[in-house]
Amino acid sequence: MIRCLSYSQGEIVSISPNTITEKINNKNLLWVDLENPTDSEIKILSDVFKFHPLTIEDCLHRKQRSKVENYKDYYFIVMNVFKGRKLEEEFRISEIFLFVSQNYIVTVHWGNMEVVNTVYEKAKSAANIFERGIDFLLYNLADEIIDDYFPIVDEVGNKIDEIEAEIFEKESKEIQSKIFLLKKNMLKLRKIITAQREVLNTLLRHDFVIIKEENKLYFMDVYDHIMRLFDFIDTYYDLLTGTLDLYMSYISNRMNGVMKTLTIIATIIMPLTLITGIYGMNFKNMPELNTEYGYFVTLAVMGIIAFAEILYFKRKGWW
Amino acid sequence: MIRCLSYSQGEIVSISPNTITEKINNKNLLWVDLENPTDSEIKILSDVFKFHPLTIEDCLHRKQRSKVENYKDYYFIVMNVFKGRKLEEEFRISEIFLFVSQNYIVTVHWGNMEVVNTVYEKAKSAANIFERGIDFLLYNLADEIIDDYFPIVDEVGNKIDEIEAEIFEKESKEIQSKIFLLKKNMLKLRKIITAQREVLNTLLRHDFVIIKEENKLYFMDVYDHIMRLFDFIDTYYDLLTGTLDLYMSYISNRMNGVMKTLTIIATIIMPLTLITGIYGMNFKNMPELNTEYGYFVTLAVMGIIAFAEILYFKRKGWW
Amino acid sequence: MIRCLSYSQGEIVSISPNTITEKINNKNLLWVDLENPTDSEIKILSDVFKFHPLTIEDCLHRKQRSKVENYKDYYFIVMNVFKGRKLEEEFRISEIFLFVSQNYIVTVHWGNMEVVNTVYEKAKSAANIFERGIDFLLYNLADEIIDDYFPIVDEVGNKIDEIEAEIFEKESKEIQSKIFLLKKNMLKLRKIITAQREVLNTLLRHDFVIIKEENKLYFMDVYDHIMRLFDFIDTYYDLLTGTLDLYMSYISNRMNGVMKTLTIIATIIMPLTLITGIYGMNFKNMPELNTEYGYFVTLAVMGIIAFAEILYFKRKGWW
Amino acid sequence: MIRCLSYSQGEIVSISPNTITEKINNKNLLWVDLENPTDSEIKILSDVFKFHPLTIEDCLHRKQRSKVENYKDYYFIVMNVFKGRKLEEEFRISEIFLFVSQNYIVTVHWGNMEVVNTVYEKAKSAANIFERGIDFLLYNLADEIIDDYFPIVDEVGNKIDEIEAEIFEKESKEIQSKIFLLKKNMLKLRKIITAQREVLNTLLRHDFVIIKEENKLYFMDVYDHIMRLFDFIDTYYDLLTGTLDLYMSYISNRMNGVMKTLTIIATIIMPLTLITGIYGMNFKNMPELNTEYGYFVTLAVMGIIAFAEILYFKRKGWW
Amino acid sequence: MIRCLSYSQGEIVSISPNTITEKINNKNLLWVDLENPTDSEIKILSDVFKFHPLTIEDCLHRKQRSKVENYKDYYFIVMNVFKGRKLEEEFRISEIFLFVSQNYIVTVHWGNMEVVNTVYEKAKSAANIFERGIDFLLYNLADEIIDDYFPIVDEVGNKIDEIEAEIFEKESKEIQSKIFLLKKNMLKLRKIITAQREVLNTLLRHDFVIIKEENKLYFMDVYDHIMRLFDFIDTYYDLLTGTLDLYMSYISNRMNGVMKTLTIIATIIMPLTLITGIYGMNFKNMPELNTEYGYFVTLAVMGIIAFAEILYFKRKGWW
Ligand SMILES: [Mg+2]
Ligand SMILES: [Mg+2]
Ligand SMILES: [Mg+2]
Ligand SMILES: [Mg+2]
Ligand SMILES: [Mg+2]
Ligand SMILES: [Mg+2]
Ligand SMILES: [Mg+2]
Ligand SMILES: [Mg+2]
Ligand SMILES: [Mg+2]
Ligand SMILES: [Mg+2]
Ligand SMILES: [Mg+2]
Ligand SMILES: [Mg+2]
Ligand SMILES: [Mg+2]
Ligand SMILES: [Mg+2]
Ligand SMILES: [Mg+2]
Ligand SMILES: [Mg+2]
Ligand SMILES: [Mg+2]
Ligand SMILES: [Mg+2]
Ligand SMILES: [Mg+2]
Ligand SMILES: [Mg+2]
Ligand SMILES: [Mg+2]
Ligand SMILES: [Mg+2]
Ligand SMILES: [Mg+2]
Ligand SMILES: [Mg+2]
Ligand SMILES: [Mg+2]
Ligand SMILES: [Mg+2]
Ligand SMILES: [Mg+2]
Ligand SMILES: [Mg+2]
Ligand SMILES: [Mg+2]
Ligand SMILES: [Mg+2]
Ligand SMILES: [Mg+2]
Repeated sequence: MIRCLSYSQGEIVSISPNTITEKINNKNLLWVDLENPTDSEIKILSDVFKFHPLTIEDCLHRKQRSKVENYKDYYFIVMNVFKGRKLEEEFRISEIFLFVSQNYIVTVHWGNMEVVNTVYEKAKSAANIFERGIDFLLYNLADEIIDDYFPIVDEVGNKIDEIEAEIFEKESKEIQSKIFLLKKNMLKLRKIITAQREVLNTLLRHDFVIIKEENKLYFMDVYDHIMRLFDFIDTYYDLLTGTLDLYMSYISNRMNGVMKTLTIIATIIMPLTLITGIYGMNFKNMPELNTEYGYFVTLAVMGIIAFAEILYFKRKGWW
Repeated sequence: MIRCLSYSQGEIVSISPNTITEKINNKNLLWVDLENPTDSEIKILSDVFKFHPLTIEDCLHRKQRSKVENYKDYYFIVMNVFKGRKLEEEFRISEIFLFVSQNYIVTVHWGNMEVVNTVYEKAKSAANIFERGIDFLLYNLADEIIDDYFPIVDEVGNKIDEIEAEIFEKESKEIQSKIFLLKKNMLKLRKIITAQREVLNTLLRHDFVIIKEENKLYFMDVYDHIMRLFDFIDTYYDLLTGTLDLYMSYISNRMNGVMKTLTIIATIIMPLTLITGIYGMNFKNMPELNTEYGYFVTLAVMGIIAFAEILYFKRKGWW
Repeated sequence: MIRCLSYSQGEIVSISPNTITEKINNKNLLWVDLENPTDSEIKILSDVFKFHPLTIEDCLHRKQRSKVENYKDYYFIVMNVFKGRKLEEEFRISEIFLFVSQNYIVTVHWGNMEVVNTVYEKAKSAANIFERGIDFLLYNLADEIIDDYFPIVDEVGNKIDEIEAEIFEKESKEIQSKIFLLKKNMLKLRKIITAQREVLNTLLRHDFVIIKEENKLYFMDVYDHIMRLFDFIDTYYDLLTGTLDLYMSYISNRMNGVMKTLTIIATIIMPLTLITGIYGMNFKNMPELNTEYGYFVTLAVMGIIAFAEILYFKRKGWW
Repeated sequence: MIRCLSYSQGEIVSISPNTITEKINNKNLLWVDLENPTDSEIKILSDVFKFHPLTIEDCLHRKQRSKVENYKDYYFIVMNVFKGRKLEEEFRISEIFLFVSQNYIVTVHWGNMEVVNTVYEKAKSAANIFERGIDFLLYNLADEIIDDYFPIVDEVGNKIDEIEAEIFEKESKEIQSKIFLLKKNMLKLRKIITAQREVLNTLLRHDFVIIKEENKLYFMDVYDHIMRLFDFIDTYYDLLTGTLDLYMSYISNRMNGVMKTLTIIATIIMPLTLITGIYGMNFKNMPELNTEYGYFVTLAVMGIIAFAEILYFKRKGWW
Repeated sequence: MIRCLSYSQGEIVSISPNTITEKINNKNLLWVDLENPTDSEIKILSDVFKFHPLTIEDCLHRKQRSKVENYKDYYFIVMNVFKGRKLEEEFRISEIFLFVSQNYIVTVHWGNMEVVNTVYEKAKSAANIFERGIDFLLYNLADEIIDDYFPIVDEVGNKIDEIEAEIFEKESKEIQSKIFLLKKNMLKLRKIITAQREVLNTLLRHDFVIIKEENKLYFMDVYDHIMRLFDFIDTYYDLLTGTLDLYMSYISNRMNGVMKTLTIIATIIMPLTLITGIYGMNFKNMPELNTEYGYFVTLAVMGIIAFAEILYFKRKGWW
């Protein structure tokens, strides 16, 4: 699907892809959005815009890193956008490919992207975005993409608190799996945000001519948001490591408690059972068996032994 | 709540917000403090001072990182201030937003801040702060904010010593939780201080025109305090990791002790019990049972076995 | 084995090694490929091309790191190529040595290399590679070499998912060995890719005269692929560490379950066995033995004790 | 306590604090040492030398990091000196504050410092230090301070070897505590040395006018000693971590041995005891009991079972 | 022991130490090698060569780090050479001290050094080293020193494979000690190589006048070898950590197996023993004892209980 917006002298119109060349020649500002482009739609990139084959190849191959590449007439930008956003699963990430020059932005993406739709509607309905230039439109896209990461990161914070509370309640292999999944997702997110930051760094460099000095502040704001994301991700990653350590040490502690119970019971009972075994033997000549109070003395001795052992364990702090 | 201080020719007066524009035009030095500003009070930022909408937005959204941003007529500075300061809880951090130009400082913060009040009283009562310029006022604020971190960091040092002593006394899941909370807080603090240091770094750069050469020394002193904070936090974080390791290895050691006790008792008693079991069987034809000293020989054999085992354990160093 | 391609005015011909000097003097473009060169073939490097003895020595000694060295008339480049590519074994890596000048590439390698063959066939059949210069031929080699790493890295991703699923199913020392081997291979790969990246970095530097400005984009594309490899390798390495932790904590958990079962059974049964031991003693005077319901009372008491213990374990959450 | 050395034309004299101003005016070289200065002695810093209040404040507040600060007429240097030097305790560190100009050094420190005394005596008795300038005096102090760290670091090396030997001999919580204390001290030392290195780095910078080119070599030598300290500390820290791991794995190994002993004994004895239990039952109708060789057959069966189990354990490598 | 080589116009002669000054004045090229120099031989450094006292001091004090220092007429270089080279022991490292100018190299070392002897013989027998200048002689020394590290590093690689194979065979504290020693040695080596690399870096800097442009390639080759050493050491260090983890997890696994055996046996046998205990009691009134098939029913019940437990363990995957 292709959709195009053209802006000239305060007026925004949706145009047909066929009139793109004409509008470019008229120095109109253009946004051409290709969603799930067909092979013939992809051809516009090479035939109408004459983009470099390497960049078109990148659009067709998925799993690209965020980056900025400087071509003769345009910049080629790749940014990563969230697709699967459930904490209980592995994050799924998609790419948006942007061709940016002074007069147009061409966006290519596979699958419907809410962040693109949002900005598209904003740009279509109000002239104040195009008015401030293509760079301001680019800012709107970048801002929307980055702000889209915050809700999920906030959720991670809550999830960690939940897990922490769970640790002392139940004991299940699920806790470890949950922590592992969250760490996995934080690692994935960190790689993406790192690449994204490099993109913003490039955009903010002085030799990046497309962004006007007056609009640079807006890109700095996006950069600042990225830095905040980093802080969250780093802290959460470290917290998750800490949480796993806490859980493991809690398990260790419980095991210790279990072992102590076993040891106490066994070391108290076993000697007593030995005594009963001795007087359960069938030797003919066992003088104690025939004494009047042998049984009661034996019970008393067993009580004393048990009592002494309990005392010993108390001293050792095991009870 | 708004409060304003105006300084001109050695005289400090509290003024009404309505006269701010007049005072600015008269080249007076001004400090405008907005605590929990109402919507109409916030309007002063855009209407009177004409601050950039991005900066005003930052003031309204919380959880900002410390940073310095360079706008046309002013610098926008964010610094983090301690709010919740109890070691037993997660640290709570708030922000102070500063708009700084050659002639005024505007501070915005949510919630009453002791560090601001302290400097406000000092600036109001004695002319020697305003006299040395707006940059010296900024120094006073920065110094107060940073020095406010030291008491809590010192407390952490004491807490670690406490925990270390506790390790060999009792054994509870609390120790791990305590260490975990402290590590969490150290991580949080480190992030904040890192951002704060970047702020000071920016202020000390040569192109930062607002700070006069003669006052730079004071900002270097604040920077030095931040570096000391870093040293403490890093050391404490590493010590906490070490303390957890110590605790875990102590737990391991104890478990070892418990297991050895169990093993010694069981391996001594069980063979003896087996012997008593044998002579407790009811077979008709068991010649030993009818010998005169069978019982005593058996007791002696059991004693010898027990003794041999004890000897064996002594040799192995288990006893 | 030596094979040579010579290009001049749109025509590509396979030539004999004896005519190399002639072709060089005619300013033809040349690719000389030495596969498992014999001693006399190696001599071409020193006698015909006059390469520096240090570079020839490198060709003869294996296990070189990727690097670029700047000699007077040519660049000496080493790149690492995959040889053993099975995930179940340790990766085996070989080297390709490239001597690159404006007019020729000389490649030296030990063992048949598919990536070289692929490019050789491409260069031989179509003039469009030589046409764009020696640097474009170099790009084709570098691109082929780097892209050759992707399939194996993708496989690692699948393998990790497999291992993760295996963890909760069976318990074997193989899982650890598998993870260990994968980590080992990721470490090895990372070293190689790091060196490879340095090579690309050098090629992309402005003072690297052989690569024409118009072809630099292609080398940037290779660089980008290397960066993606890095992302994969780093993520996988960290995931493997996480997987091992998950496995170890799962083992810990199971051990805990085993110990609890033992403790529960032992602490319930042992006291009951003691009681049976007591009434199994052969003392003459044991009044309880002669009561009518002694046996049934004893059984009831044993039932109550067992029940109380089960209740206690339920409370402790062990059951 | 104040003591002053004044040097002029080859002559060194101890002077009274009252004549400092006079000597400075005469371009004499001066060393003023303040040990545990009283309030009135501290006044000399502000009244006679006119030092900046921020530097004087630093002298009064302890726990400063090593640093160099550039004031108009002088440099303010802080260095850390060892106080408590016993390996069995936490290291205690003190500060020496140095005010250095072309013509004088003022040193301030709390508590008697041997390293200062040593240099003071050397400077007093032989003119060859003052002769080479104030910077050579500064070198002597820095060299003495840094060299003072070596004996303790050497001791740590020996201590680690001791601990390593201890590991396989006895098993005590002390080993962990010892390692923990050493790691703690290494961490502390590392922080201090890092700051100290920054000081030397600053002194060696080309814009540091006080140090003459010919004396720079001496400061480079001090720098080299600091780098050697770093090497030792880093290596020892890593070794200590390794030692703890070794100890922990040794403990694990022992626990394993203990558990195996228990398991072997229990799994051999328990089935035999069960058999004796069966033939110890008092059922009327138990045909085996009345056979002539029932007892001996039972003993033989028990022997065979025990032997089979031992064989099984041998196979599993547990015995 | 002193030995001197003097080169002039294609001729190499061994000269007496007394003629050094004369040869230097004649612009001869010189190599003076001091092995275990006596006090009077050391004097040559100060009296004949006028070396700076700081450098001579370094020669006398051992345990120096590799470094390059720039003195007025010469460079002072320290490099580390292997002495103890057995993997089973801690590596022992010695130093070689080099004074290098345009016309001479003076080498000082304690203990006979094979690498020095090798180069000495080469330089003495063939003029082609001196011919290319003192810098080429320096290269020969550096190359020999660095190449001397490779055999031991290769051995480490084999040792790791050996240890890995051993892990699944026997279980001994030796494995941990072996890994620990290897890690220790890798750490030590890494420090040394790091310093060595800095030395090469300095030699390769453009302001290092002694090395002629044409010979720089040779030093780059040494640098490349150092980088390869780094790769090996880093990889081996990480592998050793991985090997230890593998061993520890293997131990864990075995412990788990041991515990499961114990638990299975105990939980099967103990209830059966309880039953035999019950029917071994001597109560007068125990109706079951007098039934005809009581004994056989009891045996059958015991069999059923055992079978049920085995089934349960199979289900839990413990068997
Ligand atoms: Mg960070
Ligand atoms: Mg981080
Ligand atoms: Mg972090
Ligand atoms: Mg991180
Ligand atoms: Mg962490
Ligand atoms: Mg971890
Ligand atoms: Mg750990
Ligand atoms: Mg630090
Ligand atoms: Mg740190
Ligand atoms: Mg640190
Ligand atoms: Mg740290
Ligand atoms: Mg640490
Ligand atoms: Mg640690
Ligand atoms: Mg990375
Ligand atoms: Mg990485
Ligand atoms: Mg990484
Ligand atoms: Mg990594
Ligand atoms: Mg990781
Ligand atoms: Mg780890
Ligand atoms: Mg280091
Ligand atoms: Mg280090
Ligand atoms: Mg280190
Ligand atoms: Mg370290
Ligand atoms: Mg380490
Ligand atoms: Mg570790
Ligand atoms: Mg490395
Ligand atoms: Mg490394
Ligand atoms: Mg590494
Ligand atoms: Mg490493
Ligand atoms: Mg590692
Ligand atoms: Mg570990």
